[in-house]
Parts: sequence; C-alpha cells; structure tokens
Amino acid sequence: MKKYDNLVKNAAGREVPTIVNGEEHIPFKGVGKHIPTGRKHAPYIASCANYPADGNKTLANLKEALIKAGLKDGMTISTHHHFRNGDLIANQIFDIAHELGVKGLRWYPSASFPCQAGLTKYLEDGTINRIEGSMNGPLGKFASEGKMQGLGVLRSHGGRYQAVQDGEVQIDISVIAAPSADPFGNANGVDGPAACGLLGFALADSQYADKVIVVTDNIVPFPCIPWQIHGNYVDYVVKVDKVGLPEKIISGTTRITKSPDRLLIAELTAQFCDEAGLIFDGFSYQAGAGGTALSIGNYFRDILRDRKWKARFIRAGSNKYPVEMLEEGLVEYILDGQTFDLEGVRSMRENPGHVNTSPFTSYNYHGKGNFASMIDVVVLGATEVDVNFNANVVTHSDG
Amino acid sequence: MKKYDNLVKNAAGREVPTIVNGEEHIPFKGVGKHIPTGRKHAPYIASCANYPADGNKTLANLKEALIKAGLKDGMTISTHHHFRNGDLIANQIFDIAHELGVKGLRWYPSASFPCQAGLTKYLEDGTINRIEGSMNGPLGKFASEGKMQGLGVLRSHGGRYQAVQDGEVQIDISVIAAPSADPFGNANGVDGPAACGLLGFALADSQYADKVIVVTDNIVPFPCIPWQIHGNYVDYVVKVDKVGLPEKIISGTTRITKSPDRLLIAELTAQFCDEAGLIFDGFSYQAGAGGTALSIGNYFRDILRDRKWKARFIRAGSNKYPVEMLEEGLVEYILDGQTFDLEGVRSMRENPGHVNTSPFTSYNYHGKGNFASMIDVVVLGATEVDVNFNANVVTHSDG
Repeated sequence: MKKYDNLVKNAAGREVPTIVNGEEHIPFKGVGKHIPTGRKHAPYIASCANYPADGNKTLANLKEALIKAGLKDGMTISTHHHFRNGDLIANQIFDIAHELGVKGLRWYPSASFPCQAGLTKYLEDGTINRIEGSMNGPLGKFASEGKMQGLGVLRSHGGRYQAVQDGEVQIDISVIAAPSADPFGNANGVDGPAACGLLGFALADSQYADKVIVVTDNIVPFPCIPWQIHGNYVDYVVKVDKVGLPEKIISGTTRITKSPDRLLIAELTAQFCDEAGLIFDGFSYQAGAGGTALSIGNYFRDILRDRKWKARFIRAGSNKYPVEMLEEGLVEYILDGQTFDLEGVRSMRENPGHVNTSPFTSYNYHGKGNFASMIDVVVLGATEVDVNFNANVVTHSDG
Repeated sequence: MKKYDNLVKNAAGREVPTIVNGEEHIPFKGVGKHIPTGRKHAPYIASCANYPADGNKTLANLKEALIKAGLKDGMTISTHHHFRNGDLIANQIFDIAHELGVKGLRWYPSASFPCQAGLTKYLEDGTINRIEGSMNGPLGKFASEGKMQGLGVLRSHGGRYQAVQDGEVQIDISVIAAPSADPFGNANGVDGPAACGLLGFALADSQYADKVIVVTDNIVPFPCIPWQIHGNYVDYVVKVDKVGLPEKIISGTTRITKSPDRLLIAELTAQFCDEAGLIFDGFSYQAGAGGTALSIGNYFRDILRDRKWKARFIRAGSNKYPVEMLEEGLVEYILDGQTFDLEGVRSMRENPGHVNTSPFTSYNYHGKGNFASMIDVVVLGATEVDVNFNANVVTHSDG
C-alpha cells in the first residue's frame, strides 16, 4: 500500500493527497465550505445480557483484556494523552501486541510523548503501522524522517473527535488510562495518585470504540463520582500498580515569565485588548499555558479587579492563575480542557464553577455549534508569525 | 393502516402483535434471550457552518422553531415529563401543529399527564395519530377506550432510551422544556423558577433527534452550568414567559405514611432486610416515593445511624428523607433519576454527592451493563401481588 496518492491542490494552495494510507480524504475546501451530508458512526448495539449483572467488569490484567477485546492484525488502538509525559500504559499495550505477534496496528493517540519513544521499535518491526495523532519528541522525529511504514496523520483535538464521530476513524479498541475508576468502568481524572484533572480527550473513544478498556491504579467502589467517563460504555476494567507518573503528568508549579521583553509583549497585548474594547464586565477569554500568555492573564486580572468587573468564563488549560481568579470571584467559570498544574486538578475536584469540557463541546466542527467561536479574546502564543497572520509553533526566529 | 397485526404467543405466554402501527416489533423471548445484532441509530452529521458563530440560537417563539425544524405530517415529536402535571409546553406544540394543519403526528413523551388532557381533541381530529409513552389520567382513559387512531405503545424508562438509541423510534423533533438554559442550548433543571432537578428523560432525545428545540423561561448567559443537556446537540432555543407551573412540578412536602398497617408493613420489610443480611456497611438501596416506601427508608436510616454504618448510595426519585441522610453523612451518594420535592431540587443543586442520572446510566438494557442490576435492596410498592410475585400498580384489592 502506498503511503499516499492522488495529489491535488487544496483551497489553501497546497498539494495534498486525497488517498492516505489507502483511505479517501477530502482536501480542505475553505472555511465552512465543506458541508457533510452523511450520518454519524453507529457503534454496535450492546446488551446487558453480555455483561456481569453485579457490574464487576474487572479482569486480571491488560493482556487478558486486550485478548478478550479481540486484538488482532490491522486494528485501530486508541489512547489519550491526559497523562502527558507520565503515561505508563501505551507502552504496555504494544509490548503485549508484540508478544502476541500482532502486526500492522494503527495507533490513534490524542497525542504521543517522549515517554513512548520506546515504541519506535514496534514502528520498525511492523507491530505498529503508523501513528495518527500528535507526535512529540523522538516519535515525531522518526515520522519526520519518513521511517514510519504508514503515513502519519495529525488532527486537531476537534478534528480527532469529528473523525471518530463521523466514522472516518473507527476505533477497534480504546484503552483509557484513568486516575480513578469503579469496577463498572465509571472513571474520572480528579481523584487518585495519578490525578490529571479530566478525561475529555477520551470521550469520543468511550462513545464510539467497539471495545473500551479502562485501566486504573485507584479502584473505588461503585459509583466513581464524577463519572467523566460513563461505565455504560466500558467493556473491561483493569487494575494496575501504577497508571502514570504523577510528577510527569502535571508540573507542580506554573511560572509567569520573568523576561522583560516577554512581559512587555504581555502588557502591550492586554493594553491593546482593553483599548479595543474587548475587555468588559462579563467578557470571556482563552489563554495558553506559556509564560507570556500567563502574564497576559494576570494583566486581565488586574483590570477586572480594578474595575470591579467579573469575567463570565475563562477557557483553559488551567493552572493556578485562573484558579486564583475563580476563587477570588473575578471569573464565574473555568471551562477546562486540560489541567496543567496541581492547583488546576484541586480546583476541578473542589469548585463546581471549574467545569471539565471535551473536544465535543469545544472544538468539534461537525456539531450543532461549538465553544471555539464564542470566546471574546483568545491569546495564542506563536514562535513565528508572518505579516498575513499565518503563525506556527514549530519554527523559531528571533530576528 | 391496521393498529396491529400478526398475533403470536410470546415467552410470557401472552398473545402479542408483531406488527404495531405498521412497524415490526420483536415479541418478548425471555429475560436476556434477545441479543441485538445491529448498530445504534446514526443521527445526521451537523456542521458548525450552519449554526451561528456567536452561539446564539434563540428564535422568537415556538412556532418559528417548529417551522424551522421542518414540522410536517407523520413526524415523531418528543417531550419529557420532568415537569409532571405542571407542563405548559406540550399543549402549545400541538396547538401550533393544529394551526399549521399538520396531521398524523406520533407524540413520543416520556410520560403524559392530566394537564395535557386537552390534547384529546387533536387525537380525535387526527393532528396526533397516537401517543407512545405513559398516559396518566384522561389521555390514558381515551386510549384504553380504543379511541386513539394508532395503537398506544408504553415503554419503560430504559426501554424508551433503548428504542431511541437503537433507531426503533426515530425522533424528528424533540422539544425539551428546561428550567434554565443559555442561548447556545446548554440546559439544566436545577435553576430557574420552574426548577425540576434534572432533565435525564430528555437525554436520548437530545442525542438522537434530528432537530432539538430547548424551551425555557430562564435564559442565562453562556455557559449554563451544569449542562445536563449539551447545547452542542441543540438546534434552536426559545424563551417563553412560563415554561411550567412550579407548584405542580414538585410537591412542596413529602409525607411518610401515618397509617398503622402501612407503618407495620414498612417496619416488617426493614426487619426482613436486616435479618436476611441485606443491610450492611456500604450497602445500597432504591426506595420509591410512596408513603410506605418512605417509611422503610427511615427504618434503614435508623439502622445505619445506630450501627455507625454508611450506605454507599441510594437510587432515587429523591425527596427530603434521602437528602437528610446525605447531609447527615449516612449515605455517600444519591443517584437520582427525578427529584420529587423542593429539598431534592435544592440538594441536587448544592450537593456534589447528589448526582443526576438518566435512563442511559440506569435502565438501558442495550448498554454495556446498567445500574438496575447493581443495587442491594429495591423496595417496590405494588397495589396487587400474586403468590408467584407478579405485581402491578393499576389494580387494587384490599381483601
């Protein structure tokens, strides 16, 4: 099979293949130009007759769960990246696949990290055909050098949800590593030693995958509350000694920048937003987790506090700064896609106004609207921007 | 079209039709004997391109929303019954349908109530072909007398979710009356003048209907938190002056029985459960809202308090008694399908341990398990029971 075929020029003027890994893809037609006409992916109908009446779906180990889930050549296996560089489960999945002699898997993570660099050996020996998902570090380098057997496909968070919802990517087995779960499969990210805040990146996987395996090191009696993942979508539950490395899942601290030029960028950005009338009582904003973006949030905070205003919501990647604002009453809600520090996790556990979101609510373009277009101010950090406002975060020039 | 056809004897020994309102139905084969083989219903894929970027989906009135949703002859229109006998919206829907000359609708409520008795005129004139859903009061009488043009179909709460999930009933337009909503369509039942607690009976409708209309008398700025109904499933939002009559939605008070023989039944039931070893530290139970069942809950409470035990969860229909137990620390969670009094609503709004559930989590037999089989003790009130434990709540004998 060719990695890709049938190049055409898309609406952005770029040559792109319409056949990728043997499957048809639709080239970009321009913003809002592609109107889908089909129906969503329809998962198999399950029956309680095939699940234990006492709700106990636990199995002895991940290998047994993968075998029961029917792991075989060519399947699509999904994972999420809420554990970031502290994930301990993805490597185990493919060790087991290799041990069982399974070949040609598509790994469909929401993102991959350096802690999974060991999987290059399975990309080399054909256990894994390709990764479809963000690749950070050595796996990205491996793909960039053209060494992957299949073609890597990167999707945005919303694009990943959309691809699953629409059946463009059909997940055979989803393995959802969870900081806390009950034997029925209800799971969350706020409790347990590997608490990571939420599990929103795994929502599509739980809803649409044929088989869903929840792996945790913190089994609680039914019900696991909040149930960010519904056990009613889950086939098997596996208890392991350690599901992730807490110190690598979230950074203990988040620092604003001390660089004078970055602080100046932040101050000017906040001042621009203010003078442009973008900041008002009840406004909303999204700010990234980088040092400069954090500083901008602090300037927003000062403006709100001085004028006795209140932001309606902050879209986050949360950390201690939005949490302080929530607890000081300067913002009513944090709508959070991932928690970046321990304070973010604590706040999501404790504050009803700190709400977990998912790519479905926030970014899925094939929904009846989403949150992305409803935010008053979005601050995006970029390492390079051109005069037409094209931006990226993969190159860097200081000139 | 014949109301029903092709009678066969089902596994319970009853003659049942396999053709109902022109559609095939599968006769009961015995508990756990029918294993579905198909796929779930697949709703149309939407696109953000067709929804307002600012998230404001409000329309002037319900008529405009129904017209935009494409209301026409023969459609299936769904409503929920969280407002019980205080609902003000269902009547308006069919007044509009009648005014527009639409005929042959299937009304698919999760239940209908005496406040909707006026709809008999639309059953008579053919605006509504039939009701599929529980019928309480005059509508039930009308159907029982054989006057409905189509055949009435009653489903359990779980059976209703299952029928929608599996595509046996395809909802064209769902109208979700909500005590609180934002312009994007996020909605909940805990806030607003018509607060009813939760909206779980409308979950399937929001997920699977072609068009979803949220109607509320309490519009809040985005985001409406908690979002028991996701705006990402919603097409239109309509603001009305009054969505329901609070005094008929929930009773202000809940009373335990004062009847000596019923109190004795309650005491003996609790004593039986205790001596049979069904009550223990961490046990779970479900109790109905009737006076006798409430009394049993109070006996359970006394046992827990005396022995310094804690129930893990109570399945409810909640009212002030389970809420008192939650707030006293005698139970860790209330898993609640509908709130029966003001204390239930308040508690669901305030207590993180008072969790809203849905027929999906609790009763859908075509899921990967459900909660119904996981409860240690269930107390069901019945007006008549035979020596083979068949029971019903529609006949009554005191002999």
